[in-house]
Amino acid sequence: MRHTHSGGGLFPHAENHDVFTGLLRQVIDDYYRWHAQCAEAAAPALIDSVPETAAQCTAGPAGNLDAVANLVRELSGRLAHQATPIPSPLYLAHMTPDIPVAASLAHLCAMLYNPNNVTPETAPVTTELEHEVSEDLCRLIGYQPDTGWAHLSSGGSAANFEAMWIARNLRSVPSAAAAHPAAADLVSDRSPLVLANMPVPQVLDLVEALSARGLLPEVARLAAEQRRKAHTSGTLLLARSAHYTWDKCADLLGLGPADVQEVELTPLHRVDVHALGRRVRALLADGQPILAVVAMCGSSGEGAVDDLDAILRLRADCERRFGASFYVHVDAAFGGYSRSLWLRPDGTMAPFEDRPLDGSGTRMKPEVHAAFRALPRADSVTVDPHKSGHSPYPAGALVFRDRRAVSLVARESMYFGHGNGSRIPFGPHTLEGGRPGAAAAAVWAAHRQIGLHSQGYGRLLGGCIATAQRLHERFSAPRQTQPAAGCDMASEVISCFPPDLNILNLSVRRGAGEYGRVPDGALGRLALDSILAEAAGKPLTSLYVSGNTLSGRPLPGGVEQVLRLCTMKELGPATLDVVERQLRAAVSRSVATAVAPL
Amino acid sequence: MRHTHSGGGLFPHAENHDVFTGLLRQVIDDYYRWHAQCAEAAAPALIDSVPETAAQCTAGPAGNLDAVANLVRELSGRLAHQATPIPSPLYLAHMTPDIPVAASLAHLCAMLYNPNNVTPETAPVTTELEHEVSEDLCRLIGYQPDTGWAHLSSGGSAANFEAMWIARNLRSVPSAAAAHPAAADLVSDRSPLVLANMPVPQVLDLVEALSARGLLPEVARLAAEQRRKAHTSGTLLLARSAHYTWDKCADLLGLGPADVQEVELTPLHRVDVHALGRRVRALLADGQPILAVVAMCGSSGEGAVDDLDAILRLRADCERRFGASFYVHVDAAFGGYSRSLWLRPDGTMAPFEDRPLDGSGTRMKPEVHAAFRALPRADSVTVDPHKSGHSPYPAGALVFRDRRAVSLVARESMYFGHGNGSRIPFGPHTLEGGRPGAAAAAVWAAHRQIGLHSQGYGRLLGGCIATAQRLHERFSAPRQTQPAAGCDMASEVISCFPPDLNILNLSVRRGAGEYGRVPDGALGRLALDSILAEAAGKPLTSLYVSGNTLSGRPLPGGVEQVLRLCTMKELGPATLDVVERQLRAAVSRSVATAVAPL
Repeated sequence: MRHTHSGGGLFPHAENHDVFTGLLRQVIDDYYRWHAQCAEAAAPALIDSVPETAAQCTAGPAGNLDAVANLVRELSGRLAHQATPIPSPLYLAHMTPDIPVAASLAHLCAMLYNPNNVTPETAPVTTELEHEVSEDLCRLIGYQPDTGWAHLSSGGSAANFEAMWIARNLRSVPSAAAAHPAAADLVSDRSPLVLANMPVPQVLDLVEALSARGLLPEVARLAAEQRRKAHTSGTLLLARSAHYTWDKCADLLGLGPADVQEVELTPLHRVDVHALGRRVRALLADGQPILAVVAMCGSSGEGAVDDLDAILRLRADCERRFGASFYVHVDAAFGGYSRSLWLRPDGTMAPFEDRPLDGSGTRMKPEVHAAFRALPRADSVTVDPHKSGHSPYPAGALVFRDRRAVSLVARESMYFGHGNGSRIPFGPHTLEGGRPGAAAAAVWAAHRQIGLHSQGYGRLLGGCIATAQRLHERFSAPRQTQPAAGCDMASEVISCFPPDLNILNLSVRRGAGEYGRVPDGALGRLALDSILAEAAGKPLTSLYVSGNTLSGRPLPGGVEQVLRLCTMKELGPATLDVVERQLRAAVSRSVATAVAPL
Repeated sequence: MRHTHSGGGLFPHAENHDVFTGLLRQVIDDYYRWHAQCAEAAAPALIDSVPETAAQCTAGPAGNLDAVANLVRELSGRLAHQATPIPSPLYLAHMTPDIPVAASLAHLCAMLYNPNNVTPETAPVTTELEHEVSEDLCRLIGYQPDTGWAHLSSGGSAANFEAMWIARNLRSVPSAAAAHPAAADLVSDRSPLVLANMPVPQVLDLVEALSARGLLPEVARLAAEQRRKAHTSGTLLLARSAHYTWDKCADLLGLGPADVQEVELTPLHRVDVHALGRRVRALLADGQPILAVVAMCGSSGEGAVDDLDAILRLRADCERRFGASFYVHVDAAFGGYSRSLWLRPDGTMAPFEDRPLDGSGTRMKPEVHAAFRALPRADSVTVDPHKSGHSPYPAGALVFRDRRAVSLVARESMYFGHGNGSRIPFGPHTLEGGRPGAAAAAVWAAHRQIGLHSQGYGRLLGGCIATAQRLHERFSAPRQTQPAAGCDMASEVISCFPPDLNILNLSVRRGAGEYGRVPDGALGRLALDSILAEAAGKPLTSLYVSGNTLSGRPLPGGVEQVLRLCTMKELGPATLDVVERQLRAAVSRSVATAVAPL
C-alpha cells in the first residue's frame, strides 16, 4: 500500500478510485430510479401523452447525447490539463483545500436532486443536514447548540456582511426603545451613555421583551430613522490587516468612511489591543455608539490570530467601568476550524499544555490557544467550511452565540415562536435566503469523515500549521542565496514573523551588491511574478505561492510586497527541501533579472 | 423509444442512464489521473516521505472507506426516498427546475477540481467559462457583450442587493463631484435639480472622467458623507408585489423605511405606471434623489411582468421635461430567460406576431413581449440561471448594460484599466467576491445543451408558459366543485388573472352553502395545508402547489391567501386532467373539513 501526503483514504488516491466510482454509480442509479419514479409513478397512464413540443425538443439539439458527451469531455479535458493543481505538495498559494472523497461524493449526490435550503419544502433532506451542521459548528466554536445557531452562506464575505448588518441594527435598538412611548419603560433605568452601548445580552433581552409586546417592527423602524438622523450607525473597529471585504461591508451597509477605524498592528500583525482599548474607552466615555469590534482569527494575508482573550477582557473591564459594552464579531473564516486542535471527543477544550503538534516539539503559541479558548465568549463568528473545513465551494458559515440575534434581520414575525432547541427556518433568517443543499451535504459529510476534534480536523490542521512552522524555521535566519549565473546580486528570503497558523509571509531583501533603482519593497513582487510565470508554463510540477502586502511595514519604494505561503497540507522533510530550493532559486533568478543592466 | 414529459435526451431518462454513468466514469478517471499527477509528478522522489501524522490520519477513522460508503449510501438513500419530487409532472410548487444532464455532469465535473472563480489563479478554466456565460447573458438580455457585463452570484437576492448598492452609490456621485474643488468643473453646467437625478449614462461618463483624474475614490467618500448628511440615499420605487427580498435590501443598505415607496398594482398585479409616474415626477420636480425604480419581470408570487416599456417611456419623458432621470433595475430572476422565446439565432429579437407558443393558438401577451423588447434599455437586470435557466443551485446572475457601473463598488483602483471588450476580474467587482466555478460550468453547459434562442430555451419555457395558460383556461370560469361526502359546502377554484408567464394564482371561494366563521380569505390557506399534508404522506405521487398572498386583494378575514402553481414543465392534456381533478378534490375536501361542525 502506497501513501502520499494526501492520505490514502481521506483524499482521492489510486486505492479508493474504484470505491469512489462504485459509490457514484450507486448514487446515479438511485437518482435515475427516483427520477423515473417522479416522472412516471404519479400517473402511469400519462406516459404516452408527451406534448408535441417536448418531443421535438427531445429530438432536437437539446436531446443530442453526442453533443452532451462532447461538452462534458471538453470540460473534463480542460480541467484535467489546466486546473489549478491544488492537491500538489508544491501548491502553497491560496486557501483552497483538497476535497475529501466523502465530501465530493456527498456534494455530487445531493446536487443531482437540486435542493435549495431556503425552505424544507424544497429540500427536506438537506435542510435537515444543515441543521446538523449548525449544531456541529456551534460545538466547534464552543457555543451551546440549543441557544446558539449557525447557517451556511456563499462564503466569508456574505457571513461577515450579515454579522455587521445584525450588529448595526442591534446597536440602535436601546435608544429607539427609549424613544418609543410603549417601550420606554423597558429601559427607563439606563443612562444615555449605557443606551448608546448597552451590553449585547441586555440588548437581546430587550429585543425579546419588545417582541413579546409586538413592538419589535416599530422599534426597528424607529432605530433606522435614528441612525439616519445621528449621521452614524456607530464605529466599526478592526485591525489594519483586515481583509478588503470590510471596506466593502462598510460601504454596503451605508456606513460613512469615518465610521470605520483601523487599529494599529503589533509586530506579529495582530490588532494592538492597547490601542484598541484607548479608542474604545474614548468612544464609550463619550456615549458614541460602537457598531462592533471585529477580531481576526486567521487574517487573510498573514493567518494572524488577534488576542481575542484580551479583547474580551477589555470588554469586561468596560462593562465594569461604564456599564457599557460592544459587540464582538470574529472573522475566523480561515482559522475557525483550528479550534479542533484542542477539542476532546466530548466537545470540551483541552488546556494548552496537552498537545505538541508532532514529535518534533512544534507547538501552538499559548496566546493563540488562549484566543481559541475565548472564542465562545464572542457574539458571532464567521467560519468557512470551504477553507480549513475541507469542503468544496460554496460553503461559508456564520455562527451565533445567541440565536435571538437573528431576529434583528428576520423578515417574518415568528421571531420567538421557536423556543430554545427548536429549529429556526433558514430562508427568512439569512442574508442570502437560498443556498444549495449540496453544500450542506458536503459539509455534513466532511465533518463526519474527518471528525471535529483533535484526532480528526485537529490532526489534519495541526499538520498544516506544523508545516508553516517548519518553513518559518528554514527562513527565519538571514541566509544569502547564491546569485544567479552572470549576476553578482545576492538576495535574502526571510520569514517576516513566526506564523500563528498555516500562513507564512516571506520578505525578499537585497543581499550584497547593488540593486540600482529596484526598491526593496518591490522585490517580493518581482519574485512572485517569476514564480507565477514558471507555474503557468508547467502547471503540474511547479511551486505556487501568492503575494501579500504588509500594511504595517512601509519600505523604500512603497508598502512591502511579500511572498505568502498558505500551507493547506502537511509536508515531509524531503518535500520541504524541494520547496525551499525552488523558492530560493526563483527569488535569485528574478532578482537577477530585475537588476540586469538594460 | 419511450418519451415522458421530461424529454428523452435533455433530462435524465432510462435511455441516457448509461451515457450519463459512462461520462461520469470518464470524468472521475480524468480527475483521479490529475490528482495523482498533482500529488506525484511534482516530485516522484517524495512519495515515500509521508509524514507520520498523515499516515496515522490515513489509517484512522478519516481513511475508513467503509465509513465513507455508509455515509454516502445513507445520504443517497434518504434523498431518493424523501427529496422533493421536482421532476414529477404533479410538482407545480416552486421555481426549482429539473436539471438537464449536461448541466449536472458539468457541475459534478468542475466541482471535483474545487475551483473558486474569485480569481483566475484558483480557477483558470471556470473563470473562462464564466466570462463566456457573461457574454451569453448579455445577449439574452439584449446588451452588447463588449460594453455590458454579467457575473454569477449566489442567487437573485445577492444580485438585487448588488444592483441597489451600485444604484445608491451612482445616484450621489454628481452632487459630490459638484462639491469637490477639483471636480466641480465637470458638472458646473448642471442645475441642482439635474445633479440630484442625473441620467445614468451621464453619471457613468462623469465617473469615467473622475477616474481619469484619479478623483473617484475621493468623490465616492464625499458622496457617502453627503448621503449621511442628507438623511436619505434617495427613494426606491417598486411594485407592491415585489418580493420580500427588497425590504431586506433596503434595511441592509441602510435606507430609511421612508425611502422605499411601494407603488399600487394593476388588476394583473403589475406596477401601475400612472401611479409610478405621478410619484416620479413629484420627486424629480422637487430635486429629491430617486435611488432606482425596480421593475419586476416575473414577480415571485404571480409571475407578473411590469410594463417596462411604459416605465422606460416615462423615463424618456422625464429626461425631456426635467433633464433628470432615474436608474432602472429589472428583477428578472424568474422571467429573464423567457426573452429567448423571441430570440433568433443571430441574437436579434423577433417581433410579436411571429410566434404562437404551440399549435393551439396560445400566445404571449403583446405587452409582455413589449416588456422583454424593452429590457436592453434598462440599466441592470437580475436573472437566475438556477430558476428558468435550468441550472443547479447556486447560480444567480446580475447583468449590466454599461460595465462602467461596477466601478462604483469595486475595491481596486484598476477601474478603467480594461477597455471595452477586455475582461473584468470577478473577485473585486462583485458583492460576494468568491463563487463556485462549478456553477459557471453548469450554466455554461445548460446554455450550450439547450440553446439561448427560440428553438432552445424558447421552446422549453414556451411549453411551461403554455401549460400555465391551459390551466388558467380550466380555472377561468366559476364552476362549483361537488361538495365532499357528508358536507353540503361546495367551493369554487378560480384563476385570479391570466398569467403573464408560468405562474398561476388560484383563488378558493365559497360556493353555495354556509361557511360559518371561515372567512373567504383563509380558504386558500386551508386548501394548501390539505394539499401539503397529502403530499407529505405520498411524496412521489401527490400534487404539489405553493401558497401566495395577494397584497392587492384584501378580503373579509384579511389579505387573500391563494394557491400558487409554478409550472416549470410542459404538461399534456391527460396530465392537466389529473392536476385539475386532484386540485378540485383537495379544495373540496379541505373546505369540507374546515366547515365541519365542531
